[in-house]
Amino acid sequence: MTMSDEATPLAALKARVAAFVEARDWAQYHAPKNLAMAIACEAAELMELYLWMDAPASRELSPEARPRVEAEAADIAICLLNLCNVLGLDLSAAVEKKLAEADAKYPPDKVRGRSEKYDQY
Amino acid sequence: MTMSDEATPLAALKARVAAFVEARDWAQYHAPKNLAMAIACEAAELMELYLWMDAPASRELSPEARPRVEAEAADIAICLLNLCNVLGLDLSAAVEKKLAEADAKYPPDKVRGRSEKYDQY
Amino acid sequence: MTMSDEATPLAALKARVAAFVEARDWAQYHAPKNLAMAIACEAAELMELYLWMDAPASRELSPEARPRVEAEAADIAICLLNLCNVLGLDLSAAVEKKLAEADAKYPPDKVRGRSEKYDQY
Amino acid sequence: MTMSDEATPLAALKARVAAFVEARDWAQYHAPKNLAMAIACEAAELMELYLWMDAPASRELSPEARPRVEAEAADIAICLLNLCNVLGLDLSAAVEKKLAEADAKYPPDKVRGRSEKYDQY
Repeated sequence: MTMSDEATPLAALKARVAAFVEARDWAQYHAPKNLAMAIACEAAELMELYLWMDAPASRELSPEARPRVEAEAADIAICLLNLCNVLGLDLSAAVEKKLAEADAKYPPDKVRGRSEKYDQY
Repeated sequence: MTMSDEATPLAALKARVAAFVEARDWAQYHAPKNLAMAIACEAAELMELYLWMDAPASRELSPEARPRVEAEAADIAICLLNLCNVLGLDLSAAVEKKLAEADAKYPPDKVRGRSEKYDQY
Repeated sequence: MTMSDEATPLAALKARVAAFVEARDWAQYHAPKNLAMAIACEAAELMELYLWMDAPASRELSPEARPRVEAEAADIAICLLNLCNVLGLDLSAAVEKKLAEADAKYPPDKVRGRSEKYDQY
Repeated sequence: MTMSDEATPLAALKARVAAFVEARDWAQYHAPKNLAMAIACEAAELMELYLWMDAPASRELSPEARPRVEAEAADIAICLLNLCNVLGLDLSAAVEKKLAEADAKYPPDKVRGRSEKYDQY
């Protein structure tokens, strides 16, 4: 393994996903509608790992659970990067934009330590 | 905006997400169980954009639809990066590992242009 | 099998689900939060059956696919009925109320044959 | 309101859903693939109500929350009944069959009060 979050830009991950799809000629199946469904399916598989666990207990990741959570998180990321490839979407820019909007929507001094939805402030 | 998939390592995106959470003291709500649910909720919002659209039509992204798709894709990414922060998970390494496994599981010469699940080969 | 949609009120199905849970002392795990997650997980399993299929093709249910779709639809219903048991919710009344609201929200003469969301009318 | 879980056979609910769809000529949009997506979207909306709530707290349904939970539960049921209409599926029989299988899979004396998955027994 040579990739790490410290050193890997999303473009490198996107290129790896694109190469995987290209080698199998699978782009024909990857309409955004289908990829959005695939992301939701993978998200459900991640969620299922936590289904009967209390929220506090979910903070402790057992050595047996860690690789399963990592694999499901990776599946979500792969489907999401695939969608970005298909749509020509820059995910880093989209994240930055969304966080800037959320910064304005949820001012720290008003929402600090509160979980209610923003429209209640 | 200063971030792009070309130039931004995932660690920089994770740091932005962590700073957003930290400024609001919201880490207390972000048990992995809850974050897995949040990812699934955001994935459903993305999927809803494509609900009544045919798969072929979903390949064309109208100028009106693009910012909505970008915003939902960003929401999924933010929740996923948040989960990686909470669990100390390196997403790039997880993606690389999963793609290596998928490479072995779906040999290009056997699955080329076919969408059946791998266990049918 | 003795139950059929023609002759079975939801209360009879709810009683069967309650008996199944009771025999295993599983009510302790069935907080509404967890049951809502379970419904979402089962919904994703149903959806996965249609992931790479075109919408028109999904109208034809092959003899092999039928029992799988039935089993996933049943899983969703069981989790939903379980939630209704836990919350003391009358699902028939809730459905009737929701359809009455939808009747007013989407007047047949205005939305006939159109799939756009109601707020565009 | 005239429907209740005590007195309403599922066929009557299915007929109400069919009439709603028929009046709007919406059956053309209701391919099973799309309805499976719709169920998953509605399931996510129900789940979102419980997103930041602890599981124990979710057992208490406030007077304000009850109608929202009822409405989301009804939406899931309506989409599921719609799918059963489209596929000619008897949901009562499917639920009975699935519970009979689960009865055999999870023998009460072996799983009583335990939440582990059945394949660990």
